[in-house]
Amino acid sequence: MHSNQKTLNMTDAVPAKAAPASRKGGVAERMADKQKEISITEFFEKNKHILGFDSRQKTLIMGVKEAVDNALDACEEADILPDVFVKIDRVGDDEYAVTVEDNGPGIVHRMMPNVFGRLLFGSRFHARRQSRGQQGIGISATIMFANMSTGKPAHIKSKVMGPDSVAWGMDIMIDTRVNRPVVTNDKAFVWEGKEHGTSIEYTTVGRYIAGRQSIPEYLKNTAIVNPHCRITFVDPDGKTTIFERATDVLPVKPVEIKPHPEGVEVGELMKMAQDTAQKTMRAFLTNDFSRVTPRIAKELLGRAEIPENAKPKGLDAAKSKAIVDALPHVKIMAPPTDCLSPIGDTLIKKGLMHVLEGARPGYYAPPITRAPKSVNGNPFVVEVGIVFGGELPAEGQVSILRFANRVPLLYQQGACAITKAISNVDWRRYGLEQRGGKGIPFGPAIILVHVASTKVPFTSEGKEAVANLPEIITEIELALKLCARSLRSHLNKADRRKKTRTKFQIVQEILPQLAEKSASFLKKPVPNIDRTISEIMNVVWVEPIEEYDKKRKKKKVTYRLFNYTRRERTFMLHAHLPKEAVNLALFSDPRFVEMNDEGKAAWRIDAMEPSSNLDITFELDGELADTFSPEEVYVSGINTVIVMGAEALPGDWGIKGMEITEFEEEVPDDDEEDEEEEEVLEDE
Amino acid sequence: MHSNQKTLNMTDAVPAKAAPASRKGGVAERMADKQKEISITEFFEKNKHILGFDSRQKTLIMGVKEAVDNALDACEEADILPDVFVKIDRVGDDEYAVTVEDNGPGIVHRMMPNVFGRLLFGSRFHARRQSRGQQGIGISATIMFANMSTGKPAHIKSKVMGPDSVAWGMDIMIDTRVNRPVVTNDKAFVWEGKEHGTSIEYTTVGRYIAGRQSIPEYLKNTAIVNPHCRITFVDPDGKTTIFERATDVLPVKPVEIKPHPEGVEVGELMKMAQDTAQKTMRAFLTNDFSRVTPRIAKELLGRAEIPENAKPKGLDAAKSKAIVDALPHVKIMAPPTDCLSPIGDTLIKKGLMHVLEGARPGYYAPPITRAPKSVNGNPFVVEVGIVFGGELPAEGQVSILRFANRVPLLYQQGACAITKAISNVDWRRYGLEQRGGKGIPFGPAIILVHVASTKVPFTSEGKEAVANLPEIITEIELALKLCARSLRSHLNKADRRKKTRTKFQIVQEILPQLAEKSASFLKKPVPNIDRTISEIMNVVWVEPIEEYDKKRKKKKVTYRLFNYTRRERTFMLHAHLPKEAVNLALFSDPRFVEMNDEGKAAWRIDAMEPSSNLDITFELDGELADTFSPEEVYVSGINTVIVMGAEALPGDWGIKGMEITEFEEEVPDDDEEDEEEEEVLEDE
Repeated sequence: MHSNQKTLNMTDAVPAKAAPASRKGGVAERMADKQKEISITEFFEKNKHILGFDSRQKTLIMGVKEAVDNALDACEEADILPDVFVKIDRVGDDEYAVTVEDNGPGIVHRMMPNVFGRLLFGSRFHARRQSRGQQGIGISATIMFANMSTGKPAHIKSKVMGPDSVAWGMDIMIDTRVNRPVVTNDKAFVWEGKEHGTSIEYTTVGRYIAGRQSIPEYLKNTAIVNPHCRITFVDPDGKTTIFERATDVLPVKPVEIKPHPEGVEVGELMKMAQDTAQKTMRAFLTNDFSRVTPRIAKELLGRAEIPENAKPKGLDAAKSKAIVDALPHVKIMAPPTDCLSPIGDTLIKKGLMHVLEGARPGYYAPPITRAPKSVNGNPFVVEVGIVFGGELPAEGQVSILRFANRVPLLYQQGACAITKAISNVDWRRYGLEQRGGKGIPFGPAIILVHVASTKVPFTSEGKEAVANLPEIITEIELALKLCARSLRSHLNKADRRKKTRTKFQIVQEILPQLAEKSASFLKKPVPNIDRTISEIMNVVWVEPIEEYDKKRKKKKVTYRLFNYTRRERTFMLHAHLPKEAVNLALFSDPRFVEMNDEGKAAWRIDAMEPSSNLDITFELDGELADTFSPEEVYVSGINTVIVMGAEALPGDWGIKGMEITEFEEEVPDDDEEDEEEEEVLEDE
Repeated sequence: MHSNQKTLNMTDAVPAKAAPASRKGGVAERMADKQKEISITEFFEKNKHILGFDSRQKTLIMGVKEAVDNALDACEEADILPDVFVKIDRVGDDEYAVTVEDNGPGIVHRMMPNVFGRLLFGSRFHARRQSRGQQGIGISATIMFANMSTGKPAHIKSKVMGPDSVAWGMDIMIDTRVNRPVVTNDKAFVWEGKEHGTSIEYTTVGRYIAGRQSIPEYLKNTAIVNPHCRITFVDPDGKTTIFERATDVLPVKPVEIKPHPEGVEVGELMKMAQDTAQKTMRAFLTNDFSRVTPRIAKELLGRAEIPENAKPKGLDAAKSKAIVDALPHVKIMAPPTDCLSPIGDTLIKKGLMHVLEGARPGYYAPPITRAPKSVNGNPFVVEVGIVFGGELPAEGQVSILRFANRVPLLYQQGACAITKAISNVDWRRYGLEQRGGKGIPFGPAIILVHVASTKVPFTSEGKEAVANLPEIITEIELALKLCARSLRSHLNKADRRKKTRTKFQIVQEILPQLAEKSASFLKKPVPNIDRTISEIMNVVWVEPIEEYDKKRKKKKVTYRLFNYTRRERTFMLHAHLPKEAVNLALFSDPRFVEMNDEGKAAWRIDAMEPSSNLDITFELDGELADTFSPEEVYVSGINTVIVMGAEALPGDWGIKGMEITEFEEEVPDDDEEDEEEEEVLEDE
């Protein structure tokens, strides 16, 4: 493996500059004197920007973020609905006292110093399960930087639940030379009215700002994707904002999993074999990995020519490589996904609405939640949502909203795999402007992306951007393309609808005028030309009309139907409603047939007379009311070539439409959709 | 400082979900059991993307980068011209043996295990001086990932210089549980032909690529900005490439400095006071900081109301804050800058030429090296170079070349302060296309930026991008704007020249035709109209003509002068030549007057007759020949309103031009430059 002397002789370098031998030897010795260990605390002390503490503004935000992330993780781990209190007091020029208090399970007294006063100390590092904090760095680094900036200790209080449990409070400084807590004023006390929980208070140099990339912004975005949390925020002016919880249901708790063999490397496998408590290779593979059944273990070991009952301690590099090489040849199930907790459709829509701050987009593309994949044995899932048009600003680049493990990412957009994936998509194909088909597109749109994983690979300890792992970028791209297909299809529809409406209006306006003029010219009464219009149009026209009351968060939708054909028509109308927003009145409409769990609704239109029209009206209430795009309407039971303003019910709609029972010669629609097939489809 | 119970009662949270007390207490206990220390090696093992080991391609590049950076640092520290040998052998599918060998001072035997087998162990961490490596992480992490991926140890050899010094070789594995080296086969040996130096060999999973973001690309760019190095590279196909050194002169060695008081924080100052060997506050401030004279120490302590002979150990938070608060009121010199080693004009030009790979730009803007500034007490300097037009591709975004401490940055462009600063500049004002005046501009240009500092704040341990520190972004923006001003001025000139040439050509072509036609019509001989042209033009015309021989790297420049005025003219012509490229023949031209150290040259044109023309011709040779833009030509001793094709000699030119001795009524040039004043000027 090592190259021999001959190879090395190739570079027999003679120093270009002569220097006395003694001096040179001296250099190596002098350098040796300087070579010494660096403690992890000293390292971060000098590299605080790596943790995101780049500027005074960020220092304040990052500290709050670390404390709140920890609070939420602790509560969820103990099945407690989180109630987090955040307070920022101005105590001097660019100096602030920060308090973050939770109602979590508390931290036992003996662990308090290490949890808050020691870097790289934590409970979640070795757990394969989706959580916000992972490294055991964030909160202790926050306290360390506070110490360094003001010379003042942090004050920690915690009470573990229990009838007679007292609370403990202590002051903590960090000795950066050795990465150890220095505790003073360690005292038990009675925490009035507090059942359990933890409070962190520290004083730090920082700068408080509102607006974009601020503490309120971070808390607001956190509340959106964590609707089971209540967050109370008191800003430096004493103003209190409460982000009330929207649900009392905790998200499904992610389950801890074992490593998946996919992506394991030779040296890693050797190390695991050294550490295992198992006595045989078969037991080691079966028990220490997820998705390795005894049958799979047998097959792997067979291919690697290792006896099933060989001792794991004897696994050398060659044998380990044989197993790693066998992996691609053995079919192993993908990692389990109950270790993940995606945000889901409804919350993605809410998140987007929230960012709109009252501006109404023209269209919400149905959010995409991809099936989980895995990278280096860590499962991950990608979710995407897009809104477009309406009142969104058409100038400038689209807005990007990034989340990782339900934590909003405010900084380092340029470094993020999410941004990279967005830049890789040719958005011109989906109706957005983009120079050369690369880069962040321009136009009236907001793109939301969430990456959840047992191990989100952040680019640095500040957890501000997802690293550019090819596997993750590919998944995000696929999700974006799927979501963007809905956008394109919407834009195509809107375009067709516009053309048809123009045609329709011309016929409707000009024919009566012609009739009137002719009648007046001939001095005869104006004839009824409804039938003539029908003859010319030969179309069933579906016209969606919407009215939105911003204040009351109420949307009234009317589908106005015209039967401009010569015959009676019976068919069904379908729309996918935001279930949570549906008003009960819907169900009393006699033409309403059904609505399924997903919110897919159907109405039956019976024997609609030629030259008649009718309205189907319903209301949507609440937060999600405005996420419904009435243009997304479908028909069944009718030959769709004579329908304008609604599409044929998609084959994968889920609930059955009505079969077409009659046929006749119809005038084909000339605006056929010329939709390009996507590579996305292959993947599905 | 700590909020009292009353404050906390505000958030008396009652758990929203009841759960038995015992179980909740159990959660805290159960979590406590999981809370444990994480070793720094385990941390990086799980977060290898933080070190830039994102993909197989990057794994291979990053390892070579760490080893080469270390080799160059070691050689320079010992005043040795670096001679580095890099070899990549393919030993299996996606498995490579990497060898990096240098002629540095060697590493003493007892330190070898720790330097290569322990993270956060190094000699440069505490030194305030520009160097490539700093953290003591890179090379040991490289070895750790190699261990983990293949299960094989790294092999290290080193020989310290000295007549009878033997070389030592050993195999090193890293025990990631405790972050300690495990050494085997530790043996002394005779290293034939090797005077001194170190060799690192390891086997790793990786993927070898050529082209953009590859090992050859990294080595090439390294060689460009480190012309004192020889780098020999043997690729997996056995092909050897030698990047020969361009100079035998080592760059001026950066000097180690003490921390500057600017930006020191309260807690930091307390810690330094605790650690100091000094007995009084005055001695502490004077000896432990740079730029703090006894007078300054006295003033600081006076303002802080601390006795000069107070013991440093007694410095509490309040006293420390008093000193920090006094700092802005006391004038302290900027940090010394001999700790920095900028690239310089010539190498920036070479760097740019190199990237051009034969494509000829229309214009090289003179590179800008800013005066050093400091952030958090660390001096830094910014350098910028721009090339524009010619054969550069006009489609797409401009190319960006980033360097930090003479190391090329290949990845994470989107995360980098350099990119951020480029995006902040409104390039439309400087002749580049840019949507909305923000973002990376489009057009035929390459922008090179180098940031050198005693502590470059990288966004992560992979050292791929400079963190977005506002102080650094501002400096880069200023340097970019200064450099871009030359570009704009060039484009303005080019535009004016084009207009004038058109006018000139019309007169020159049409008048003779008119004369000829008239003569033929009148059947008279064609009159000499030279004088008439002069009357009409009343201009001294300077026409630059260039011929470039790519192969021979030779540029021939001719300034063709026309005196289209009615009088004899005496004046001087000036141009700023790339000194290194000037051919000796220049000096034998009788009209040549002088050239200074910077390459600023002057010619004297004596008594040029009306309606006459003459050529001034010279040649440029070698690498830098093509960086000269002949359009940048100036005149003195003549009223410039009658000169076309050359500007008035700038006031800050340095060497004196010729005074104008005569005046007469002249026709003013109508193409006056309407140049906007820049904020940049205020800063200078």
